[in-house]
Amino acid sequence: MNAAPSAKVSIDLNCDMGESFGAYTLGMDGEIIAHISSANIACGFHAGDPLVMSRTVLLARQHGVAAGAHPGYPDLQGFGRRTMDCTAAELEASVRYQVGALYAFCQEHGVPLCHVKPHGALYNSLVGNDTLTRAVARAIASFDRGLFMVALAGGYGERARAIGREEGIETLLEAFPDRAYTPQGTLQSRRLPGAVIHDATEAARRAVRMAVEGVVEAVDGSLVELRADTLCVHGDNPNGVALAAEIRRRLEEAGVTVTARKRPEIG
Amino acid sequence: MNAAPSAKVSIDLNCDMGESFGAYTLGMDGEIIAHISSANIACGFHAGDPLVMSRTVLLARQHGVAAGAHPGYPDLQGFGRRTMDCTAAELEASVRYQVGALYAFCQEHGVPLCHVKPHGALYNSLVGNDTLTRAVARAIASFDRGLFMVALAGGYGERARAIGREEGIETLLEAFPDRAYTPQGTLQSRRLPGAVIHDATEAARRAVRMAVEGVVEAVDGSLVELRADTLCVHGDNPNGVALAAEIRRRLEEAGVTVTARKRPEIG
Amino acid sequence: MNAAPSAKVSIDLNCDMGESFGAYTLGMDGEIIAHISSANIACGFHAGDPLVMSRTVLLARQHGVAAGAHPGYPDLQGFGRRTMDCTAAELEASVRYQVGALYAFCQEHGVPLCHVKPHGALYNSLVGNDTLTRAVARAIASFDRGLFMVALAGGYGERARAIGREEGIETLLEAFPDRAYTPQGTLQSRRLPGAVIHDATEAARRAVRMAVEGVVEAVDGSLVELRADTLCVHGDNPNGVALAAEIRRRLEEAGVTVTARKRPEIG
Amino acid sequence: MNAAPSAKVSIDLNCDMGESFGAYTLGMDGEIIAHISSANIACGFHAGDPLVMSRTVLLARQHGVAAGAHPGYPDLQGFGRRTMDCTAAELEASVRYQVGALYAFCQEHGVPLCHVKPHGALYNSLVGNDTLTRAVARAIASFDRGLFMVALAGGYGERARAIGREEGIETLLEAFPDRAYTPQGTLQSRRLPGAVIHDATEAARRAVRMAVEGVVEAVDGSLVELRADTLCVHGDNPNGVALAAEIRRRLEEAGVTVTARKRPEIG
Repeated sequence: MNAAPSAKVSIDLNCDMGESFGAYTLGMDGEIIAHISSANIACGFHAGDPLVMSRTVLLARQHGVAAGAHPGYPDLQGFGRRTMDCTAAELEASVRYQVGALYAFCQEHGVPLCHVKPHGALYNSLVGNDTLTRAVARAIASFDRGLFMVALAGGYGERARAIGREEGIETLLEAFPDRAYTPQGTLQSRRLPGAVIHDATEAARRAVRMAVEGVVEAVDGSLVELRADTLCVHGDNPNGVALAAEIRRRLEEAGVTVTARKRPEIG
Repeated sequence: MNAAPSAKVSIDLNCDMGESFGAYTLGMDGEIIAHISSANIACGFHAGDPLVMSRTVLLARQHGVAAGAHPGYPDLQGFGRRTMDCTAAELEASVRYQVGALYAFCQEHGVPLCHVKPHGALYNSLVGNDTLTRAVARAIASFDRGLFMVALAGGYGERARAIGREEGIETLLEAFPDRAYTPQGTLQSRRLPGAVIHDATEAARRAVRMAVEGVVEAVDGSLVELRADTLCVHGDNPNGVALAAEIRRRLEEAGVTVTARKRPEIG
Repeated sequence: MNAAPSAKVSIDLNCDMGESFGAYTLGMDGEIIAHISSANIACGFHAGDPLVMSRTVLLARQHGVAAGAHPGYPDLQGFGRRTMDCTAAELEASVRYQVGALYAFCQEHGVPLCHVKPHGALYNSLVGNDTLTRAVARAIASFDRGLFMVALAGGYGERARAIGREEGIETLLEAFPDRAYTPQGTLQSRRLPGAVIHDATEAARRAVRMAVEGVVEAVDGSLVELRADTLCVHGDNPNGVALAAEIRRRLEEAGVTVTARKRPEIG
Repeated sequence: MNAAPSAKVSIDLNCDMGESFGAYTLGMDGEIIAHISSANIACGFHAGDPLVMSRTVLLARQHGVAAGAHPGYPDLQGFGRRTMDCTAAELEASVRYQVGALYAFCQEHGVPLCHVKPHGALYNSLVGNDTLTRAVARAIASFDRGLFMVALAGGYGERARAIGREEGIETLLEAFPDRAYTPQGTLQSRRLPGAVIHDATEAARRAVRMAVEGVVEAVDGSLVELRADTLCVHGDNPNGVALAAEIRRRLEEAGVTVTARKRPEIG
């Protein structure tokens, strides 16, 4: 599943989308869609509404981009960025609900649902938490064993993948070309200076190394192994879109195929 | 599809369920489930939450009761009983979302999703409105052409059935044994005295005639043809449960089989 | 209360504000505020959240603009633009709630709450409906008899004013310089061509006649009496802001003082 | 402010109320109201809706019970029992909003708003957290310096009182007659056996000692000083109501006056 420095390297580029709500518009979905291979589509809890979800799945279909569910905490006001102290049972049911809701729009437009990537504070809550990770894995597996779970690459990602396999699903490990990494292969805290890389050339250079070599240069200059299946880019501002475009251009220049993973065969 | 006075008469008994929310409990789901053949399960917009939905689908499975989605207006405070001036596009997307959400819990518990019955003010909004009826039919058909749409029996129901067929789905026509009917075969307004029949024996007697003869006695004493596939009972109070039990008992005494319709074969 | 063609003409310019929500930004509040004398601030039901409300009241204070509550239907997804079939009691309690909520932010920033203008579909629901108009008037009067109610100028406005007085409050009548009027002094339906006037010069010319002469030129060219205390402008797009600026400039050129009405003395 | 073993001992008895929502009924407000002196009324975020709030303030007025605001996290589904990782600014604005909303219903019924008691997970989040405690104190003080803040008695309570005074308000310290206490004067975790006292006689005995002696017997048998102004009882189940009735009876037998604190004079 991991990218390897071989003759035929491929990587997935994913982006959060469909985060508008009612009269509120957010994100440059129409522009970022041209640069990515997987769309994580908000499901109405932290962002998105039924009409936005329909429109976003259609956009993904028109661009041949894989459609995934992007479930979040039930907190529109906080945009799913505030951790909520939910039980594993609440979380599992909540993810299941949102996955089903997005699936309905995939049915509408005749495209497969491909993956599930938790959003924001929920994504972060899972890191290092086996119980919550398993809750999410179960929600996904019970819905469709052909769906990928997306989890933060690094030590946690390997653990998430193991949990996912116990529950019957495959996991895509995700890395962030525009984020600084510690020598331990974890994300540098956003509170520290330099945590976010704004320079498109630098971010693209890092994306290529992630895809081709499976490594990232940490904040102390050391090289850290970081095997990722999918790289996250951002479409909520012009800089993010430009950065994504540059990442894609450099990846293709380096011979990397940008493409979503194929759904696994279910035995 | 309609009940006919033959040797092998069968009828469906349906009830709204899963209307609790968070700390709030509503309805006597555990008791009414023993008397019905189809459960209309709230989908989180007017009532219900992910844990309640999971629990209710499980309850339906345990009792061999067909699970259906019961989508409503996005108005928890008004319990879906306040008409909202939505566009057909909003309505279609909203129903699609809720159907998908409930389907996820059917997947969890390994039961098929069988039907979709709009709730409260939404159900009433559809009556006589081709555009909104078609919006709901499309939401259902695009999700799964094996799902039944449930619509008010009488003149509207035949129209709803025709619209449903144009969109590729079958419709179950619904009658209310505990409601008075006009000579035109429409429901007597709740604002008029006698609109609701509280006597269990009388309601059961009406249910048997609906199932066996396909008729109802109107408020003026005339007999009106009313061909129904499913009869609605109520589980939100002890009287409703007692009335449902009596209806079932009398139906079976009269040789009527109480059972959900089988999902149609999809060509 | 009405503007009259005298030596000392004054008029209020009002605008809806504070319609952002969480991560979602809407409107050009920072720009429109320079041109108006009254701000209608969303109260969290159709738009706005506690932080946005605080920020918006502060903005009003900084610009010497009167702060008012802008209550709407409880429908964030529909931005309060979908009519909901609420009872008068529900509506009254809902408006009361929102007025109190906004008042808390006036207390925070040490400014008086000055007026209450219902939003969107709620505003339209009141027109011609004595029962609902009275419900809103009661909600306002019970909170603070020094608050103005804002109502659509024309025949309805006079009726609303009478109802308001019965309940103990004064009413500001509102006209729309950028909307076409029928010969009966009602707003031309938005479905008809020419319903909205996009030309700033034309809108400003109409605003001046409304303020100075108390008339508006109807779609058939006839002059209709339209006595208004406050004119509505829009800050949700650049054209609206430019139009508001032009209206203010022309009003002042014509010798009209743009200012909010002073709160009435309460006996 | 604290209860002292003097000739004229008085204590407040408070209870959470108004926790119904729309079609959902919760709590035995009509019964518990007879036994208490202060009502903490939900404000629509974790429970309650505008009509329920109006009804509950009226009930308090009819029984001469002091009305207070009971703000919670914006989480109806979790009933405000799930901690949300809000910033101090978010919390302050959120409490301000809810206090204003409840005040509107006090205005409706012509009763003063007397106190503010945070609910559930929010109440617990404040314990030991100066920043969040100050945020709540500021929200209250900016609204009305005559309002009491209610805080958990014990070490934290003294700190909360100091913070409240810095912000200009007085604090009522709250103890729980039906909860076990550690020798340090903190609440025994609910996860430990015996954390909740179900026996009415025992709870009433503890209430009397809290009121008369300002002490509580800890789980190890030691006597701990616990100076409280108000004791919390529960009205969400028959046992809670019976327990409250017994507490009140025993307090009065012991010569303790059950009464809400008078609002402080504001300089």
